[in-house]
Amino acid sequence: MKATVLYGSHDVRLADVPDPVIAEPTDAVVRVVAAAVCGSDLWTYRGAVPLAEPARFGHEFIGVVEDTGRSVRTLRPGDFVVAPFNASDNTCPNCLNGVHTSCERVAHWGVPGPGGHVMDAGQGEAVRVPMADGTLVATPSQPAAEQIPSLLALCDVMATGRHAVRTAQVAPGETVVVVGDGAVGLCAVLAAERAGADRIVTMARHPARQALAEEFGATDIVASRGEEGVAEVRELLGGRLADAAMECVGTDASLSQAIGTVRPGGRVACVGLPLGVTAYPYRRVFSGSLTVSAGSAPARAYLPGLLADVCSGSISPGRVFDGVYPLDQVADAYAAMDDRTVIKALLRP
Amino acid sequence: MKATVLYGSHDVRLADVPDPVIAEPTDAVVRVVAAAVCGSDLWTYRGAVPLAEPARFGHEFIGVVEDTGRSVRTLRPGDFVVAPFNASDNTCPNCLNGVHTSCERVAHWGVPGPGGHVMDAGQGEAVRVPMADGTLVATPSQPAAEQIPSLLALCDVMATGRHAVRTAQVAPGETVVVVGDGAVGLCAVLAAERAGADRIVTMARHPARQALAEEFGATDIVASRGEEGVAEVRELLGGRLADAAMECVGTDASLSQAIGTVRPGGRVACVGLPLGVTAYPYRRVFSGSLTVSAGSAPARAYLPGLLADVCSGSISPGRVFDGVYPLDQVADAYAAMDDRTVIKALLRP
Repeated sequence: MKATVLYGSHDVRLADVPDPVIAEPTDAVVRVVAAAVCGSDLWTYRGAVPLAEPARFGHEFIGVVEDTGRSVRTLRPGDFVVAPFNASDNTCPNCLNGVHTSCERVAHWGVPGPGGHVMDAGQGEAVRVPMADGTLVATPSQPAAEQIPSLLALCDVMATGRHAVRTAQVAPGETVVVVGDGAVGLCAVLAAERAGADRIVTMARHPARQALAEEFGATDIVASRGEEGVAEVRELLGGRLADAAMECVGTDASLSQAIGTVRPGGRVACVGLPLGVTAYPYRRVFSGSLTVSAGSAPARAYLPGLLADVCSGSISPGRVFDGVYPLDQVADAYAAMDDRTVIKALLRP
Repeated sequence: MKATVLYGSHDVRLADVPDPVIAEPTDAVVRVVAAAVCGSDLWTYRGAVPLAEPARFGHEFIGVVEDTGRSVRTLRPGDFVVAPFNASDNTCPNCLNGVHTSCERVAHWGVPGPGGHVMDAGQGEAVRVPMADGTLVATPSQPAAEQIPSLLALCDVMATGRHAVRTAQVAPGETVVVVGDGAVGLCAVLAAERAGADRIVTMARHPARQALAEEFGATDIVASRGEEGVAEVRELLGGRLADAAMECVGTDASLSQAIGTVRPGGRVACVGLPLGVTAYPYRRVFSGSLTVSAGSAPARAYLPGLLADVCSGSISPGRVFDGVYPLDQVADAYAAMDDRTVIKALLRP
């Protein structure tokens, strides 16, 4: 079958790889219907994260179960499934605590898994999924074509936006700030609106992203960054600061900005992969009596609730996919994300 | 009157200072009945925090109201009062959010206040208290002599221990770790026990402190520090880690230790003044999906509840005072705290 391989900086192509097969009784094989390119894929694509050898890519995919191992109990061939951005057993103490990202048998798409073999990745025609019962969540019925983007958004970005809002403890009526206008930041706006935030300030510069933020529920847009951006937020809020902020980028600048926009006693949730965080402003956090949560979203924990929201039409996070590419144009998809000419690219095998 | 003045490293003495008088209509003058020496006073005493000029010291005191300004409504001469470790108006938005440490008119004992004049400090015969209605809390009746130490503990250490437990979101039945065996750490043990924690691991080396920790509710004592201490906690807990940790010291080592003892998705509350924190382990926090709260306790917010607990005999945090000194032996009190021959010193004017 064909799958995406990243060979080096700005060199991503389809390659012929072995067809996935059931290797363990808990495996499933999923035929991919749609996959996404993630902002974090770009760190490696740009060379900011070194690549030791060519690697399979993609940790967001949805599709149809083609085969299952003999121990799989919750899925059968033909089921339409959503895969979270990591595999987990959903039974260990960390999973039971809702922290599937720290599953004792956690495995990541495209990298060596617990057994030592390299896991399949999502940007391809099919994927062998380990711990299928623990990892995959099936939709109640076959989805309509227009639901595909929103289901794909649940693998990572919408789950991450929801996680940011939950860990920032956003309560109805509150004022919040979202730092970052990528797909995760936009989904955090949507999640904050769902959580009942009264005022949602989005720090976004790009017109298309500003427009989508407003569609998702942003009440105010601030294009400035850094101290100027913080000053603008304060002015917007009548001299006060926000109750909570969601940091959806992962750099020193975005972290300081998020921390700078919250009032004494406020909460900050950091979901941006900290690839660019080298200096944490602990004294500012201490002097402001802030609570800062950090970490990747346990997407698996949010899937049942978010699936219900998408199936009922309550949320349409798939609006973040403004570029659709056939799988064999994966290089164009990466380039468009890299140029920021699209917010997020959807690949169709 | 006489009051404590710190003249330089290891040089603390009583000095003659002006008697306090009502200067603003919102002031009260309090005759001090008992004052405490704080672990944070030692930072300056040891020269770790530089001293520009001789300064009045003491931010923990209780006493009797001697005089009130004409606008004071909640207090009258003769009332027995507890003073939190900073003055606040209790009416600004930050106070209403429960963050009295960030009061818009916050003032600190012994340093220049909002009006520019240097505030009186607690280790003396009397104190002029600004914003008396907002700052002081009166006891329901004149306390018995044996209640004095426990009331004094509410000014800072017990309020701080309670704050650590609240911001670490300790829930009944949970397993928690307390890092630091000073008075604050010991009070955090007491607060965790009151909050219903099932297992309370105290990291303490000093036998007298270990004994008091056990009296306050600690179920396990770990004397080792650093990675060895973390490994010992893990072993004690059957290979798992704690749900929450309270960091009550304020150094890189104590912070790393606290963060190292909590499970994925756990919470850490940092109440130790970060005088020795230079490197925050953000990646560890992110990879463990931790929530870290930091900040000084808004003691004023906890006073009504803690006062009721002391008056009913539910808690006796005054047990941390194992050294009592007449005010004119303040130098001995500081030296004993510095040598760790006492946990906490109580001064009697």
